[in-house]
Amino acid sequence: MPEPFRIGIAGLGTVGVGLVELLQNNAALIHKRAGRELEIVSVSARDRGKNRAVDLTSYEWVDNVMVMADDDRLDAVVELIGGTEGVARGLVSRTLSNGRAVVTANKALLAHHGYELASIAEKNHAPLMCEAAVAGGIPIIKALREGFSANNINAVYGILNGTCNYILTTMRETGQSFEAVLQEAQEKGYAESDPAFDVDGVDAAHKLCLISALAFGVKPEIEQVKTTGITHITAKDILYAQELGYRVKLLGMTRNLRGKIIQTIEPCLVPDEGPMGAVENVFNAVFVEGDFVGDSLSVGRGAGAGPTASAVAADLVDLMRAISVPVFGIPCAAMQEADWGDSGDLTGRFYMHLVVSDKPGVLADVSAIMRDHGVSLEAVAQRGRAPDKPVSIIMSTHKVKQADIQNAARIAADLPMVHTPPCLLRIENI
Amino acid sequence: MPEPFRIGIAGLGTVGVGLVELLQNNAALIHKRAGRELEIVSVSARDRGKNRAVDLTSYEWVDNVMVMADDDRLDAVVELIGGTEGVARGLVSRTLSNGRAVVTANKALLAHHGYELASIAEKNHAPLMCEAAVAGGIPIIKALREGFSANNINAVYGILNGTCNYILTTMRETGQSFEAVLQEAQEKGYAESDPAFDVDGVDAAHKLCLISALAFGVKPEIEQVKTTGITHITAKDILYAQELGYRVKLLGMTRNLRGKIIQTIEPCLVPDEGPMGAVENVFNAVFVEGDFVGDSLSVGRGAGAGPTASAVAADLVDLMRAISVPVFGIPCAAMQEADWGDSGDLTGRFYMHLVVSDKPGVLADVSAIMRDHGVSLEAVAQRGRAPDKPVSIIMSTHKVKQADIQNAARIAADLPMVHTPPCLLRIENI
Repeated sequence: MPEPFRIGIAGLGTVGVGLVELLQNNAALIHKRAGRELEIVSVSARDRGKNRAVDLTSYEWVDNVMVMADDDRLDAVVELIGGTEGVARGLVSRTLSNGRAVVTANKALLAHHGYELASIAEKNHAPLMCEAAVAGGIPIIKALREGFSANNINAVYGILNGTCNYILTTMRETGQSFEAVLQEAQEKGYAESDPAFDVDGVDAAHKLCLISALAFGVKPEIEQVKTTGITHITAKDILYAQELGYRVKLLGMTRNLRGKIIQTIEPCLVPDEGPMGAVENVFNAVFVEGDFVGDSLSVGRGAGAGPTASAVAADLVDLMRAISVPVFGIPCAAMQEADWGDSGDLTGRFYMHLVVSDKPGVLADVSAIMRDHGVSLEAVAQRGRAPDKPVSIIMSTHKVKQADIQNAARIAADLPMVHTPPCLLRIENI
Repeated sequence: MPEPFRIGIAGLGTVGVGLVELLQNNAALIHKRAGRELEIVSVSARDRGKNRAVDLTSYEWVDNVMVMADDDRLDAVVELIGGTEGVARGLVSRTLSNGRAVVTANKALLAHHGYELASIAEKNHAPLMCEAAVAGGIPIIKALREGFSANNINAVYGILNGTCNYILTTMRETGQSFEAVLQEAQEKGYAESDPAFDVDGVDAAHKLCLISALAFGVKPEIEQVKTTGITHITAKDILYAQELGYRVKLLGMTRNLRGKIIQTIEPCLVPDEGPMGAVENVFNAVFVEGDFVGDSLSVGRGAGAGPTASAVAADLVDLMRAISVPVFGIPCAAMQEADWGDSGDLTGRFYMHLVVSDKPGVLADVSAIMRDHGVSLEAVAQRGRAPDKPVSIIMSTHKVKQADIQNAARIAADLPMVHTPPCLLRIENI
């Protein structure tokens, strides 16, 4: 009879409580699959008095979470506190330094300090597991690190933030504005009261830089993710995209362009009948292009108690089965400083929406700017004609260099007849 | 400097040659990710003289493949011969008995002898890996065994045969008959000259019973997969399904219905705008319902040299990293004889298409049969009215017990005005 695998759980928010519930409900299953019992020894959170939906009475309560790092009874510490500094960073670092395994769902921490923590893990032969850090319902860390381990990865595309996908889906379904849908989402608890972290693309950027590290073997660098959120997307953009056969999705994209890695988070148009277009509401998706496996797409819930707890518990089962791979799939010494590329060097097709005064010659002026920047237009349409009201010009382009069309858009924005900055979105045929 | 990991490759068909190509092209990458070099020591195939697209001159040629099983230089043998008996079975069994690891893509072998081979593997502490046996481009074995290891699985649905999916997609896109599309597919090399293995659902059934074993911890039993192919699907069925907002897909489904496991392969209607409907052409998909992770879908290429080689090579990298989990996720002693359920006990919505004489009273007779079997109709339409020609009656039902509607369809088939057996297909909202 092997010894139980003993853990401490630091942080009892939605995910922490979900994890306790999973480990209680599925204890027999986990025992069978992992070959030994999993025992929660201790738990910790800021507020002991808070009413939680699970029974914690059989676990030790730890006031100072740092005690877990030094508790030699524990085989692993689960960090579900969150945050890039302070307690979370200290706990993970100290636990690993003590040679003890850590399982974390903390994408922000790993995006900022992933290489440092991976080095501490490696030096102390302590596994650091993070499946829950990216798209809990999709075992994408394992897929990139193990399932696709024999492939050169060309690119990874992801819908990585459920809140943004919910907002964009609802905007399309109801025709409402971003602001109106965001308010509703906040009331329903799908969006935080401070939504910037989600809608500005920061959360997606954290996840993307971990994906880059896994896919390309480069040190994660959050500063190298060019990040655009969805706050500027209007109901009209969603409608016009739909008329062209597309849906708007906030895509995280990381690609290897002739040896240079380019990481971007930006709203894009994807075909409404394609597999990425079918990913709606709070669902996440990750699309991987490998040199032998070809195209592979995974779709699942990105957040929430159940999927995130499922990912944390899978990491624990891996530890109980003695499965351990370096955090980013290769030893730290083999990880490289990436040669970061410029997204302006990418080529692609684009959608552009300009709101302009309904005066003769506007289209001619805009078209001339496009021509002067080498932008070849596939289609142009004008919408919303009404006396003395501004009208919309919607353009889709043939393949063009991103820097060229961005320059064209900047110059077009300065035309006196152009009311608001053009909305320029990549069209990705995935 | 660790010793290289040494392998023998048995079988040099499409997949074997693809594997050699992958291991040659991506040798440095694999070395970096696995921490040691992978060395092909020997290869074997029936016909040494055959012209193959890869350079095999640096590998030993083995005429009698059984030699590989006993070759103590080898860390693993890769079995890509195929077939459920004879050489493949003997090689895998003997290699494992010698305590040597085996990687196989042979779904038929495992569907028929999986439990026996897993037992030999376990007894001899020899890993048996089979990621390539199900949907090569989707790391679904790893996902079920590791990624979702903390979940009770309720059901798994899969598009598991690329040939069938290509045929059904092309029938929808071109309006051609099954026979015409099959012939084209054969000419293009997408279908075998003897297509029964694919179009009768046998190949999908092999894969499904491995999925059941992984999902539910039961011994694989190929005889317990109720298998219906796609040969009876007409161009009209595809068209009528489309008019109702559905696409026809050959689905493998395994579910846990109150403790009874029900395995079926059958063509079904899935929503054309849903994630499963978007899986077209040769792509495979696997949809998993777990109690904590919720719904998760993975899409990728199911067959072909690249994706299958990618899966085999991922298994090899796992072996090099000393990752090893029991073949079906739990020790053999813990695997149970399933309590197999009857698909007639399932409930669901159905599509039914009858070709009937255009005479008064037909619809009344058919409707009465449905009523007498407790089948509540959601919609009925008649199509194809022309003098003295048979017409189509298309029905969709509300939720009904499968046995009831199957009985109703059998009785309707005996009506003198009904020309051909009704086409009865489940509607699955995934």
